[in-house]
Amino acid sequence: MHDAPAFTAFPLDRGELLRRDAGALAALAVRPDARIAPFWRLKPLVREDGGAPAIAHLPGDRFEHASTEVVFLGIDPAGAPVLAAALDAEAEPAGLVPSARFMELREAAAAGMDAGEASILAAARSALAWHATHRFCSQCGAPSTLAHGGWKRLCPACGTEHFPRVSPVVIMLITRGDHTLLGRGPSWPERFYSCLAGFMEPGETIPDAARREAKEEAGVVLGEVSFLMSQPWPFPSSLMLGVRAEALTEEIVLDPLELADARWFSRAEVEAVFAGTHPLARAPHPVAVAHHLLKWWLESLR
Amino acid sequence: MHDAPAFTAFPLDRGELLRRDAGALAALAVRPDARIAPFWRLKPLVREDGGAPAIAHLPGDRFEHASTEVVFLGIDPAGAPVLAAALDAEAEPAGLVPSARFMELREAAAAGMDAGEASILAAARSALAWHATHRFCSQCGAPSTLAHGGWKRLCPACGTEHFPRVSPVVIMLITRGDHTLLGRGPSWPERFYSCLAGFMEPGETIPDAARREAKEEAGVVLGEVSFLMSQPWPFPSSLMLGVRAEALTEEIVLDPLELADARWFSRAEVEAVFAGTHPLARAPHPVAVAHHLLKWWLESLR
Repeated sequence: MHDAPAFTAFPLDRGELLRRDAGALAALAVRPDARIAPFWRLKPLVREDGGAPAIAHLPGDRFEHASTEVVFLGIDPAGAPVLAAALDAEAEPAGLVPSARFMELREAAAAGMDAGEASILAAARSALAWHATHRFCSQCGAPSTLAHGGWKRLCPACGTEHFPRVSPVVIMLITRGDHTLLGRGPSWPERFYSCLAGFMEPGETIPDAARREAKEEAGVVLGEVSFLMSQPWPFPSSLMLGVRAEALTEEIVLDPLELADARWFSRAEVEAVFAGTHPLARAPHPVAVAHHLLKWWLESLR
Repeated sequence: MHDAPAFTAFPLDRGELLRRDAGALAALAVRPDARIAPFWRLKPLVREDGGAPAIAHLPGDRFEHASTEVVFLGIDPAGAPVLAAALDAEAEPAGLVPSARFMELREAAAAGMDAGEASILAAARSALAWHATHRFCSQCGAPSTLAHGGWKRLCPACGTEHFPRVSPVVIMLITRGDHTLLGRGPSWPERFYSCLAGFMEPGETIPDAARREAKEEAGVVLGEVSFLMSQPWPFPSSLMLGVRAEALTEEIVLDPLELADARWFSRAEVEAVFAGTHPLARAPHPVAVAHHLLKWWLESLR
């Protein structure tokens, strides 16, 4: 179930040509085979039915609810349209689907939701979070409107087009000999350690960003940086860029605003972390790319 | 000079800790050794002096000009602060530095500007372009204010923090046997062909985005996708993610909104393109990552 990080198995054709056709989109959205995933406060509606959480869709021809935004997510392999709708209600809407409830996507993914469904909800959550925080034009301050099935906003006042934001983040498997550097943020739950990470800035290559973050957060100087894997992370809309980096220095100088602790873990310690027997640290959850970077490293040492 | 794509040689320490200290920043900016790079309408001021364009800096203690935004770019290896300032004037400001002029950064980089200087201007241009288009809070529509030396904006009305946008773009060396796929946009100058590219969307991995773009723009289905190199591209603030992809299909079906033409070029043809002897196409400029993807491919075939 967790051979890959979460949210990396998006199964729909995004149908970009369709997005340009408002009439076709409106017709798609009310088809009986259209599936609409309701969200409330960025939490998707899920059924549990005694097993892993699954999307509690509503069919397009029976969806009647005040929605702030509806986003067209794509067409599934059987030809059915899939959409997401942000419900407007102040109080949590009840009774939409019997026995379903609104659940944080992170929680649903960690509880074993199907990888394709979790990936659909990830794209939806990022798009809906973008709408929720971009209702006004950054260029002129006027209210903007949703367009292109939710993949654009238009400003009727100044004409600016806005597109959903994706924020690249470097996340680093930093190694020195058979040790790797893990840290924990000041507000993290107890015993959580993970790979260091940070948002990329304008004007940086991926290695530039990795070098800056390792230096800033932990005082560690990096040598070679190479790319390993990417993951969309919908909290709210990051692109995780997993890299491997060789440390040239060992001494750790913490930036206390960024990290409460950072330390070098030997391979044997990381194995204990994964086995749940390390006294200090627990492993990053398999939904997170850090889990897979560390697993990759353990396997590469064998 | 062009062994790497442009804008990949940023030589400053970005001094993120300093950014948090408004008093220290204000003192840095007026030091005699501080260098301020003026911009007007996103064009940097450059000297030519008969050679390649170079930044026409003003010293911090002599910089007196109405500026909309000043961005702290970092500290150079000699300890001197480097900043950029967007000049407010309606008409092009003259006489700031004798014989200097405002020039498009793309033009300056193509004319052989030092790689470190071009990279400094790239970070500056992206940050200044972000300020110019984000003077209002996307959350509530109120005017926002510059903070953290230009690496943040704050909304005094609703308290939202905004950070400079970096938009990831996949750019693809698509190959099939000894052929590669190049295309040209509908508005491109004559004979310009390059690798296909497109903005990533929320919910995508890098291979997802490559597959979607190749299918949408040219109807080509991709197999394996692997990462090659990244480049910041300051027009206005992209992160180019150069990938190699194997095509599983050959037939080209153009999306005429995206491409005026796309075709398969053999290795011999790409060599002719670089030699300037191809009847149809000219090579992407060495400032662009596409140039380096194609060069990498030619060399990998040797």
